[in-house]
Amino acid sequence: MKELSKAHITIVGLGLMGGSLAASLRQHCERITGIDNNPDSLVYAEKKGWIDKGLTSLENGWNTGDVFILSTPVRTIMRHLEEIAYMANHECRVIDLGSTKREIIQRMESLPPHIQSIGGHPMCGREVAGVSCADGELFQDRPFILVPHSQTKEEIISFAEQIIHSIGAYPVVMNPKQHDRIVAVISHLPYLLACGLVGAAEVTAKEENNLVWEVSASGFQDTSRLAASDITMMIDILLTNRRAILNAVNLFQNQLNKLEHLIAAEEEDLVREILEKFSKRRNQLFQ
Amino acid sequence: MKELSKAHITIVGLGLMGGSLAASLRQHCERITGIDNNPDSLVYAEKKGWIDKGLTSLENGWNTGDVFILSTPVRTIMRHLEEIAYMANHECRVIDLGSTKREIIQRMESLPPHIQSIGGHPMCGREVAGVSCADGELFQDRPFILVPHSQTKEEIISFAEQIIHSIGAYPVVMNPKQHDRIVAVISHLPYLLACGLVGAAEVTAKEENNLVWEVSASGFQDTSRLAASDITMMIDILLTNRRAILNAVNLFQNQLNKLEHLIAAEEEDLVREILEKFSKRRNQLFQ
Repeated sequence: MKELSKAHITIVGLGLMGGSLAASLRQHCERITGIDNNPDSLVYAEKKGWIDKGLTSLENGWNTGDVFILSTPVRTIMRHLEEIAYMANHECRVIDLGSTKREIIQRMESLPPHIQSIGGHPMCGREVAGVSCADGELFQDRPFILVPHSQTKEEIISFAEQIIHSIGAYPVVMNPKQHDRIVAVISHLPYLLACGLVGAAEVTAKEENNLVWEVSASGFQDTSRLAASDITMMIDILLTNRRAILNAVNLFQNQLNKLEHLIAAEEEDLVREILEKFSKRRNQLFQ
Repeated sequence: MKELSKAHITIVGLGLMGGSLAASLRQHCERITGIDNNPDSLVYAEKKGWIDKGLTSLENGWNTGDVFILSTPVRTIMRHLEEIAYMANHECRVIDLGSTKREIIQRMESLPPHIQSIGGHPMCGREVAGVSCADGELFQDRPFILVPHSQTKEEIISFAEQIIHSIGAYPVVMNPKQHDRIVAVISHLPYLLACGLVGAAEVTAKEENNLVWEVSASGFQDTSRLAASDITMMIDILLTNRRAILNAVNLFQNQLNKLEHLIAAEEEDLVREILEKFSKRRNQLFQ
């Protein structure tokens, strides 16, 4: 198969992630076709010079290239995998950028052998959506999770790594279960916390004449930021990663309940001990 | 009493908030004395030209000015109110910047009549602490909550408003109960959520060989940011605002439980409806 520099890549879904990938990858490959059901996104990406051609459906584009990168919400990726399995009779490679991996990987494992596949997930989400927010620098110095499966060949792993390095990211390999458990805690749980926080503030705002919104400061703004995430993407995530997410919520509730009881009991020393542990960990991570 | 431009202001506690206030207020008043038990903070603030004189204890400084601004953790403010009540035999004004108000306001109400007082709370916290993070622009365009009490006279309200306007903030008046309920939801609850999130991630990290920390992205970083807040300040907040905080945790848990059950039951339409409500609200607030 071809090297990246000779590859014709078809990116399905020109949103924040697909658009950014096109922007970042354009100079490293032979040709990019963009597929999106929103013609405005295609026009935008074409004007920016991120894609060479735009198509509004995969049906018209299945034979446009030898590499497909699926960059839509998870359940749409599942549909596209069906379409590719049905239509593609030439050798091709499929990489997805879906936010959850269990169902996608399961489907990939049963694709016909001339369709090579591997799961991917660049860890650089934002709460904004759409191609107009895309940014070729999005992946710079960020981890890009690769999820190989039982049928994944060495060849597509090294091809995916070429892509990852060319966009400035670095690969981290995981199995699908690990991936889904980890992102449940570091990405899907924070989203639910942000939603619950906005909900709790909303209830209080109703009782306090909206004074709540008037005085909310940067702490509230940051902690609630993810509540503004793209709903279609999040619904697919919540429904395709239910078990791991409910488990993460449970882990979180144990932590919160413990703190809650210690505060209620005025156990100052124990509260301090726990808070110091969290503060130290947080500072180790990001400072 | 004197106008702000003729006032000699004593700021007790030169941390992020007190230091920023000194920096912002210095050009608008006659003189600023800074009091902090850390001599390094005094040297720093003096070098910056934010204070005219530094003292390491309020005991040596009770007669240094006619306005005291108390800018320490809440329980230290309570101790300083006792000291001022005991020592100050001249007419003076006391404004505190404490993060919770019920206990402080209760104590202020019983101060001798020559000590005028009012509660204050600038809504511009950061998760960093210390005078080296202070910034004269911190209050710019931010709400500054004023909490008058049964003994607060018009004179000190308008004096506090002069301060607020001179540092670029704007006043929002509340009663102590309102204040404590609102900050419990928009500031103390987010702190506990950030802590619980770090705790849940820590448990998962132990099971997944630290891969969790390797791939955590901006969503996790923002939602967990407050876990790095100053512990001494937070312990005082948690212990002096217990009831309102436990109530806010309860409001939050109701929201999270509802979402959790709908996700477990795969109630896609209801999940979407709730998430859309939160997303809309969050976008109204900050975009």
